[in-house]
Amino acid sequence: MGSVAVIIPAAGSSSRFGGPVKKPFVPLAGKPVWQRAVELFCHRPDVAAVYVVVSPADYPQFRQSERLKLRLVFGNVEVVEGGAERFESVANALALVPAGVDVVAVHDAVRPLTPPAVIDAVFARALVTGAALAAVPVADTLKRVGPAGVITETVSRAGLWQAQTPQAFRRDWLVAAYAARATLGANITDDAQLVEAAGHAVSVVESVAANFKITTAADLATAEALLAYTPVVAKARPVADEDEGRW
Amino acid sequence: MGSVAVIIPAAGSSSRFGGPVKKPFVPLAGKPVWQRAVELFCHRPDVAAVYVVVSPADYPQFRQSERLKLRLVFGNVEVVEGGAERFESVANALALVPAGVDVVAVHDAVRPLTPPAVIDAVFARALVTGAALAAVPVADTLKRVGPAGVITETVSRAGLWQAQTPQAFRRDWLVAAYAARATLGANITDDAQLVEAAGHAVSVVESVAANFKITTAADLATAEALLAYTPVVAKARPVADEDEGRW
Repeated sequence: MGSVAVIIPAAGSSSRFGGPVKKPFVPLAGKPVWQRAVELFCHRPDVAAVYVVVSPADYPQFRQSERLKLRLVFGNVEVVEGGAERFESVANALALVPAGVDVVAVHDAVRPLTPPAVIDAVFARALVTGAALAAVPVADTLKRVGPAGVITETVSRAGLWQAQTPQAFRRDWLVAAYAARATLGANITDDAQLVEAAGHAVSVVESVAANFKITTAADLATAEALLAYTPVVAKARPVADEDEGRW
Repeated sequence: MGSVAVIIPAAGSSSRFGGPVKKPFVPLAGKPVWQRAVELFCHRPDVAAVYVVVSPADYPQFRQSERLKLRLVFGNVEVVEGGAERFESVANALALVPAGVDVVAVHDAVRPLTPPAVIDAVFARALVTGAALAAVPVADTLKRVGPAGVITETVSRAGLWQAQTPQAFRRDWLVAAYAARATLGANITDDAQLVEAAGHAVSVVESVAANFKITTAADLATAEALLAYTPVVAKARPVADEDEGRW
């Protein structure tokens, strides 16, 4: 079993719901969304460290209010000051990852419902292939929509998957790809694409739709419902066999 | 307010979950998925009729077991024998829609969680523009994945939406488009695309991610959770003002 460091960018844009609070900081069933994302990873025996990256504007207050709790309660969680862009934020955390770590995973702070089995599978695949991410096959027809809200094109969904997180990479691959970012293409918008551009194959691990990104008030309500749900499990019938001789 | 007929194709492929039962017939919180889809529409005052279309193989038994209940309980639901392909199934139901109906909507039998507000909005928009469908902006990065489970391409999601249902059309537009299907393109895979090919603009109505299609066992579990959820609403404090004088 290799060791994993997890980077959780929580810079976040202002939410369109819950007032002026940024999406990662919105409460979800009593805890901020970012904290639920952290708790997916920080208790895992294979995770050496979790880095929560917040924007420079949020950093001083966040560090003061959350750092002590994170270190005392979770032990292995560090708060990192981010940059102006997501790439810069990830790079700042990546610079802190110890060289002994085999795999670095990046996970969206606004994806708090990832099943442990999906995390297991992504980490395991990344240890084998060097790069893997959670994804689901696109289930709906895709339409390109023009500015007037009118459909302009139907796009084939054949072979298309929706990339989720976690995305996990060999530490040395991710470090080298970030170092070469200016050469590989400054227009690249995600970590997997950057690693692909560096010449590495990135594998897909089939995930579930419930591992969605919270981007709207409706998503938040859906997440609340999923967290509140306890499946009804049929109770086992008491075994009475050993009582049969006692009539 | 115009009148609407709703076509629900429930031919369905065999599910990969719940044994050999086809997806629309899998029970969801005590009722088959298709019935939950029907119940989204059959109680609406603007819906004149709902047509459930099942495959020729399922038709005799389904009609015998469900038709009486559907007619007695819901009044306005009819069972229709489908064809070999989805288009044929929709066409068979479309042939039964009375000419007085303004709008025909098509809804997936495996999409049982559509909020009434989304249905309202799609119907209202279709009455104004002639054609509208529920959709959500694509929130995740899209990846093209090769046969070995390796990413081959990152696809821009700019301007892309995931088409859901209901999709609603002026009756005359949909009838004419179906009649011209051989000319418009036999490779067309969805109703909206067919209406677009006939030269009509199709509008998009923003929906919610919870209006997803049930295609996996995980989706079914998510749907169960969403149906079971009752939001905690703060109880109103009893008004005591009128009692104040009774000390």
